[in-house]
Amino acid sequence: MSKLVPTNRIEAFSDGVIAIIITIMVFDLKLPEGNEHISMWMALRPLLPKLLSYTLSFLVLAIMWVNHHQIFHQVHQTDRPLLWHNIHLLFWMSLIPFATNTIGNRPLQPESTLLYGIVFFMCAYAFTLLRSYLLKTGLLHQTISKAAQQKIIRKNRLAFSIYLSAAILGYVSVYISFLLFLVVPAMYFMPEAIVHETGD
Amino acid sequence: MSKLVPTNRIEAFSDGVIAIIITIMVFDLKLPEGNEHISMWMALRPLLPKLLSYTLSFLVLAIMWVNHHQIFHQVHQTDRPLLWHNIHLLFWMSLIPFATNTIGNRPLQPESTLLYGIVFFMCAYAFTLLRSYLLKTGLLHQTISKAAQQKIIRKNRLAFSIYLSAAILGYVSVYISFLLFLVVPAMYFMPEAIVHETGD
Amino acid sequence: MSKLVPTNRIEAFSDGVIAIIITIMVFDLKLPEGNEHISMWMALRPLLPKLLSYTLSFLVLAIMWVNHHQIFHQVHQTDRPLLWHNIHLLFWMSLIPFATNTIGNRPLQPESTLLYGIVFFMCAYAFTLLRSYLLKTGLLHQTISKAAQQKIIRKNRLAFSIYLSAAILGYVSVYISFLLFLVVPAMYFMPEAIVHETGD
Amino acid sequence: MSKLVPTNRIEAFSDGVIAIIITIMVFDLKLPEGNEHISMWMALRPLLPKLLSYTLSFLVLAIMWVNHHQIFHQVHQTDRPLLWHNIHLLFWMSLIPFATNTIGNRPLQPESTLLYGIVFFMCAYAFTLLRSYLLKTGLLHQTISKAAQQKIIRKNRLAFSIYLSAAILGYVSVYISFLLFLVVPAMYFMPEAIVHETGD
Repeated sequence: MSKLVPTNRIEAFSDGVIAIIITIMVFDLKLPEGNEHISMWMALRPLLPKLLSYTLSFLVLAIMWVNHHQIFHQVHQTDRPLLWHNIHLLFWMSLIPFATNTIGNRPLQPESTLLYGIVFFMCAYAFTLLRSYLLKTGLLHQTISKAAQQKIIRKNRLAFSIYLSAAILGYVSVYISFLLFLVVPAMYFMPEAIVHETGD
Repeated sequence: MSKLVPTNRIEAFSDGVIAIIITIMVFDLKLPEGNEHISMWMALRPLLPKLLSYTLSFLVLAIMWVNHHQIFHQVHQTDRPLLWHNIHLLFWMSLIPFATNTIGNRPLQPESTLLYGIVFFMCAYAFTLLRSYLLKTGLLHQTISKAAQQKIIRKNRLAFSIYLSAAILGYVSVYISFLLFLVVPAMYFMPEAIVHETGD
Repeated sequence: MSKLVPTNRIEAFSDGVIAIIITIMVFDLKLPEGNEHISMWMALRPLLPKLLSYTLSFLVLAIMWVNHHQIFHQVHQTDRPLLWHNIHLLFWMSLIPFATNTIGNRPLQPESTLLYGIVFFMCAYAFTLLRSYLLKTGLLHQTISKAAQQKIIRKNRLAFSIYLSAAILGYVSVYISFLLFLVVPAMYFMPEAIVHETGD
Repeated sequence: MSKLVPTNRIEAFSDGVIAIIITIMVFDLKLPEGNEHISMWMALRPLLPKLLSYTLSFLVLAIMWVNHHQIFHQVHQTDRPLLWHNIHLLFWMSLIPFATNTIGNRPLQPESTLLYGIVFFMCAYAFTLLRSYLLKTGLLHQTISKAAQQKIIRKNRLAFSIYLSAAILGYVSVYISFLLFLVVPAMYFMPEAIVHETGD
């Protein structure tokens, strides 16, 4: 199967999975039923950490989708290991709603930031494995400079180091973890890094 | 990445997200289990506001999908800011099930109409930002007249002003809000406005 | 917008919505947690009507998808009314999980078969409206004979009459309704009707 | 309809359904709310079997998606029976979240491994029916050797025999079942079997 398969069905399947992951998390945002006598603002208050963690996870997943989009735009054909690298990545992404739900329910416990950090770490790590595989094999379009790819992989490594630190440093203070969780999206919003260096 | 990317994967991803948003709301329409001894009509009665808010949200989301469909049909290529304008729009759309659930549970509280109105306001606002960005840049097909686009943006502004009013006026009477929520879909069903003026 | 739009994005969006509708129903099939001391067969027993209604709804939705697939395969371009006929159809299809959940929870109450029957009736009716609209306008490929289309519309009318009868006759006996709900899928499995008469 | 229909819409619909099935299972991974006073590790402990069964089901579904991908890559046109073979397969796949939820809740009961085994058995069986149908008819591309297809069908038969054994042997020991559930994915990871023998 290796050489014959175009990327469109991997992209469609990944888009489907990511669309579902990013959307079903909203289902945890819900006023508890049966306490209509409590003022709505009181009922909304425990939803606040859920809303914040939802927003952060939505943002991170959106960045991952943009990166996924960009990576597969550069791939001209797929083989079986690439299929499995992609599935490996989707597996860790699929755990984001679970980690988001946990941190939304217990925002100030270091176990929550540990779980949240580990899941994001594994996502970033899976991205790095996928990119490294593409670099080793000849599946990328010829116009993509390997130096630019290497630079992105270094950035990826930085991202997953930050996530790992965030996972652990929650035991010092969960607020350090929250700060670090915000650093990675900020890193990816500095546009020049990706746009110019990949040369596309 | 900016100039090379076609719109098909943005469209596919957006279709996926909107399809999920529009569909998962139905999961809140459910008879409570465990009270099979109550007559079904009694059990259905608290579902009535949920059914109405579901229908309204379905309608509004369908209009948004039709508009999204129409906008991206006119875009010939995407860049990174457009990607993020689209994600911004999808974020606010993804909160519609939450707002629908809230207004379905507490239909007569002004806090519910406030939340529902704000979410729809932000969706309409995100649409306007996206359209304005497209007008400023050269991403639209040449055949689309800018005057027609300007007219659509004015209509958008009207829509989000109505949503903002509905959000606030619920504190006078929630029924005023309900009425205003119906006005916007009605506006979009007057076909001549869009069909002729965009010239396509 | 009317004449320029190809059908692929309607098809993709509809596929997404139908895929979600057909799949999320399985989420009601769940052993209640917290009674692990009860034998599993005892716990599974109340799931039996849910499993049966899930299977029937899955089958009916699959038939609807096959028909939708067939209809849009014959359409060469879309306009705004067609878009809205399709959304109208998807709206009623989106209520199938709700009706399925209701009949699964209260299988022997005529109110359940009424609700289930009405939702399926409205789906079949929406299909007929959509087909009639296509016949009136020139959106079909020229090779499709109008006589064959008329025959399919007559079959559709038969289907929605059966659903309407099933909805009402539950007040005589729910088992009559169940029988009638099975008749329509059986009708659609007789292959010659569609394959030969549409001439494609 | 038989001869005219390309495979892209079957693939898109199947991708949608499989993407949803593989993703919604994560919704069962959730800390129970309302016991924030319990240490998180205590709260996570009952989640462990759920996490393991989620991982296994994710893996098996991913293998099924890869196989589905590979099969339909070889099909050049579809007919109505193929459509229904595919729907039959998707039906059994759609029950995987239910079986996963059951085994996650009651991991050590042979009834759970029975249910889990039967659902996987039926999926593997549905795959075999689909492949056999493709072999009998002329829907495959000419370049695919029938001998290679036969070999894959033999492998499929081995897989569903193992699932059937696993389903039954849980009554001896559920650990035998768990071991057998792991054997099939392992079988499919031996790359040479598929890559070379199908000659593509």
